[in-house]
Amino acid sequence: MAADLTELIARHAGVLNSAIDAVQTRKAWSPFQDSPSAKLHAPGRPEAGRDAFMALLGRRFPLEQPGVLDYAGREVSVYTGDALGIEYPRCDPRALARAAETAMEQWRTIDPDARIALCLEMSMRLYARNFEMANSVMHVTGQSYTQAFSGSGPNALDRGVEALAYAAKAMRDVTPRAQWRRAFGKEEVALEKAYALVPRGVGLVICCASFPTWNAYPAMFASMATGNPVIVKPHPIAILPMAIVVQECRAVLSEHGVDPNVVTLSVDTLQAPIAQAYVDDPAVQIIDFTGSPRYGGHLERTVTGKQLFTETAGLNSVVIESCDELPATARAIARAACLFSAQMCTSPQNIYIPRDGVLTKNGRKTFDDVTKAIVAAVDDIAHSPASAAGIMGCIQARASVDLVMRLQDVCEIEASVLRRATPYVHPDYPAARTLTPLVVAVDAGRTDLYAEEQFGPVLFLIRAENAKAAVSEATMLARQHGAISSYLYSTDDAFIDCSTSLYEAAGANLSINLHGAMWANFAAAYSDYHVSGLNPAGNACLADLAFVTSRFRIVQRRRPAADRATS
Amino acid sequence: MAADLTELIARHAGVLNSAIDAVQTRKAWSPFQDSPSAKLHAPGRPEAGRDAFMALLGRRFPLEQPGVLDYAGREVSVYTGDALGIEYPRCDPRALARAAETAMEQWRTIDPDARIALCLEMSMRLYARNFEMANSVMHVTGQSYTQAFSGSGPNALDRGVEALAYAAKAMRDVTPRAQWRRAFGKEEVALEKAYALVPRGVGLVICCASFPTWNAYPAMFASMATGNPVIVKPHPIAILPMAIVVQECRAVLSEHGVDPNVVTLSVDTLQAPIAQAYVDDPAVQIIDFTGSPRYGGHLERTVTGKQLFTETAGLNSVVIESCDELPATARAIARAACLFSAQMCTSPQNIYIPRDGVLTKNGRKTFDDVTKAIVAAVDDIAHSPASAAGIMGCIQARASVDLVMRLQDVCEIEASVLRRATPYVHPDYPAARTLTPLVVAVDAGRTDLYAEEQFGPVLFLIRAENAKAAVSEATMLARQHGAISSYLYSTDDAFIDCSTSLYEAAGANLSINLHGAMWANFAAAYSDYHVSGLNPAGNACLADLAFVTSRFRIVQRRRPAADRATS
Repeated sequence: MAADLTELIARHAGVLNSAIDAVQTRKAWSPFQDSPSAKLHAPGRPEAGRDAFMALLGRRFPLEQPGVLDYAGREVSVYTGDALGIEYPRCDPRALARAAETAMEQWRTIDPDARIALCLEMSMRLYARNFEMANSVMHVTGQSYTQAFSGSGPNALDRGVEALAYAAKAMRDVTPRAQWRRAFGKEEVALEKAYALVPRGVGLVICCASFPTWNAYPAMFASMATGNPVIVKPHPIAILPMAIVVQECRAVLSEHGVDPNVVTLSVDTLQAPIAQAYVDDPAVQIIDFTGSPRYGGHLERTVTGKQLFTETAGLNSVVIESCDELPATARAIARAACLFSAQMCTSPQNIYIPRDGVLTKNGRKTFDDVTKAIVAAVDDIAHSPASAAGIMGCIQARASVDLVMRLQDVCEIEASVLRRATPYVHPDYPAARTLTPLVVAVDAGRTDLYAEEQFGPVLFLIRAENAKAAVSEATMLARQHGAISSYLYSTDDAFIDCSTSLYEAAGANLSINLHGAMWANFAAAYSDYHVSGLNPAGNACLADLAFVTSRFRIVQRRRPAADRATS
Repeated sequence: MAADLTELIARHAGVLNSAIDAVQTRKAWSPFQDSPSAKLHAPGRPEAGRDAFMALLGRRFPLEQPGVLDYAGREVSVYTGDALGIEYPRCDPRALARAAETAMEQWRTIDPDARIALCLEMSMRLYARNFEMANSVMHVTGQSYTQAFSGSGPNALDRGVEALAYAAKAMRDVTPRAQWRRAFGKEEVALEKAYALVPRGVGLVICCASFPTWNAYPAMFASMATGNPVIVKPHPIAILPMAIVVQECRAVLSEHGVDPNVVTLSVDTLQAPIAQAYVDDPAVQIIDFTGSPRYGGHLERTVTGKQLFTETAGLNSVVIESCDELPATARAIARAACLFSAQMCTSPQNIYIPRDGVLTKNGRKTFDDVTKAIVAAVDDIAHSPASAAGIMGCIQARASVDLVMRLQDVCEIEASVLRRATPYVHPDYPAARTLTPLVVAVDAGRTDLYAEEQFGPVLFLIRAENAKAAVSEATMLARQHGAISSYLYSTDDAFIDCSTSLYEAAGANLSINLHGAMWANFAAAYSDYHVSGLNPAGNACLADLAFVTSRFRIVQRRRPAADRATS
């Protein structure tokens, strides 16, 4: 092995071992700092990151790739409304697939430990560019600066490192060599066996628009660690973060004498989507998809003979059975619902409240008391420009604003609008596309209104027959439409215990009684399994052994031990 | 946990731990004896097994299952030509699927260790019935008695225990609980997390006709260990072995207070196949298929949203580049090709010999020398009734005889028939359907003749341009048509080394220079990975982590550690 790779393996061994320990114990751990606080970073880093981002604007993004057809890119800052003016090479998909196949010939021969070390090096280098990444993510997705820094930075990189830990575990489970001895009749047979890890084929990573890096890192690293090159296909409205990722990964590869086409970027346009060309290419054997249930469902229904991992969307619910302090519970729900204006796969949408109200430490609160508390908690966030900006960020797509407005019109007639969705004025970016949540009270049974994910800031406060009926409907909808994160508030252990089996059977990961500083919808890499694969929200989990084991195969050979003196 | 299950776990812990050790070291190990030798078994066991088999004939097979429509069964002994006269309950597939779903509700709640212990108990109980099983397998499949005893008994059970070892490893990888602590700003958050293993859904196990137990045990045990009930669908001409398996599994379940519908048998007829009804049933989430490329390919092209594991067929090759002693090499090839009359997925069919012959210790041997040596080695086996019976057994299906005869007619004109396929007279069963191998010499390039699996005793001796071209074509055909076992004979380490990467890239498991007492096509559980999944011979490997990890899912819940005093 080349000396630099040996050194790289040694340098990152500590992080890898800690990551493996973390996924086994599922304790809190990270090699990264997920706060942009000036106290945690060297002076000048935030400014340098912003400057690096600014320097990218209005020009061709530096990325040398094969098969360039032309240059494309029409990203617009959600904050300023201005075009970023960045153009990316748009490459012939056949050329990228062939380049990936060629790169695989070298990549597959590189020791798995070295491949993992190279991926860890990429993660460290990307972390070093995290202020630049935060600005980039913020402007193309609408995430707030702090969320872009943490959620699309270290928290996402952690998901990638987690996938590397599982890849290491799965590959280390296969011994490279064995001695095998057995008597057959009077003859003692001694065989020497070798087991090779063989990559499955080119990986296609289709990224979502609103949170591109979070699912991309684990998919990329899981495929690459196991010997597969990857072609990264970002959403055409959020290319920049993934262009930075691909640029940095290619630099790391090149610097270590590896064909950079192990990682390439495939840019397309809304008018001429390109993903299906890769899906149909025989060289592509692994597909990681994050995005809309429409295209994700199409892939789930049509892809055969290839390994497909999906995360689409869920109908996340909160059931309030009882709580200690209503304002604290209302605040926790409002915060989770307001975070990135509910454009997250973990955002709660349907809040079930028993029609008879909920018991609290301070006595029984009526349905109206609860809805008022939630609206007040949303208002608390929305009415302070600083907190609105820090928590809600912006609405990435005009379509989401339109959807919420149409829904508001419908609900004015069909339900009861408790809080109208209105823009807030962003303190730093007056042109930012913002929208505070629409809050609607609705009777249970109006599944025509709430039984699908509304991609935007919408909260349905559902008047349930009782808490048990609420859990029953919430878990039934999770089975039917998917759920990624479910929430339950109850001070009654017996109620919790009899509810958990319903959530479990629906494949719905459940957070119980979360209040306070941690966002209820925070998902911690190494500890929180993300997506169960048991309901329509997706077929893959971030991350478990199943996320990595089928990305490589084992091919063996055996021969008599005596056959060759030196082996 | 019930006391009997605790006891069962303790009783089988040693076997499970040894199995886990064996799959990690891939050394030779088995808890079973795979020889029927009287020295290894208690007196009277062989006779008692034969009597138990005889007692099954001519009556209804004792199996109580839900949804019985009628009784069916038209199995015929390949050895006697007589109908077995056994009738099995034919059940409504909806009733079996619903019964499996109901059984899953209990099965999923049983501790994984107890589920594994119950499966190990089943394996031990089936081993205790192995003389009965050997007779049953022999008569419906045509395997010789000794092969039925070993290959369909302990060697198959070992594959099942191996799958249990992987299931244990994969499930133990998920900690059931964790404590998670992290600071968010000034607040220290402490969460208690629980991770539940949730089964994926009902498993369908479709068995092949010629070797039903070998793939069935690993599929059944992998699904059951991970919490899924299984519906076993044997081939209508080879029901009896799987009926015995299901009967014994159900007995073990019932005796331990478990709903026996965790394992059911679904019998169908050649006229009215039933597999697709299960494939289309939403409750069925896992499909293990072994059988023809026709139906297997259909499943591979059409099944989406369910976990599909297949093994279909391969085009296994031998390349002879050079060897020490030609007769020994010819004997090894002839034995592998004659074993069960080439009705095994590991049987070699295409034997590549360089047109300039091969170098041996005793000088260069011409192409004709080599073909003559192979024909002589086949004749050695075929001309002794005892060895023919012990090695070749019978031809299970009339269609295989017809196929070989038609091929012989074609090759008389299109190629050069070196040895005609003729029946041998079985010493014990004069009515047995037998056929010794057709051996044909053919020029490389006549892929119209040899580029597909001929299911029956056929050997193509292919005149290759040279050994390198032979490896090139053999591995190319493996990529295109699949290969499960490939064989290479060479005394030239440099040639071997430059060939192995081609086999590896084709996903072809390679045996090099195997001679002597062990059959070259013997595949050892715990040590030899069977099927790579990289070529059309199948998408699943027996066994690796990928064979088990997607049969279950993880669903988590989390709540504040302080939320409940006792947890």
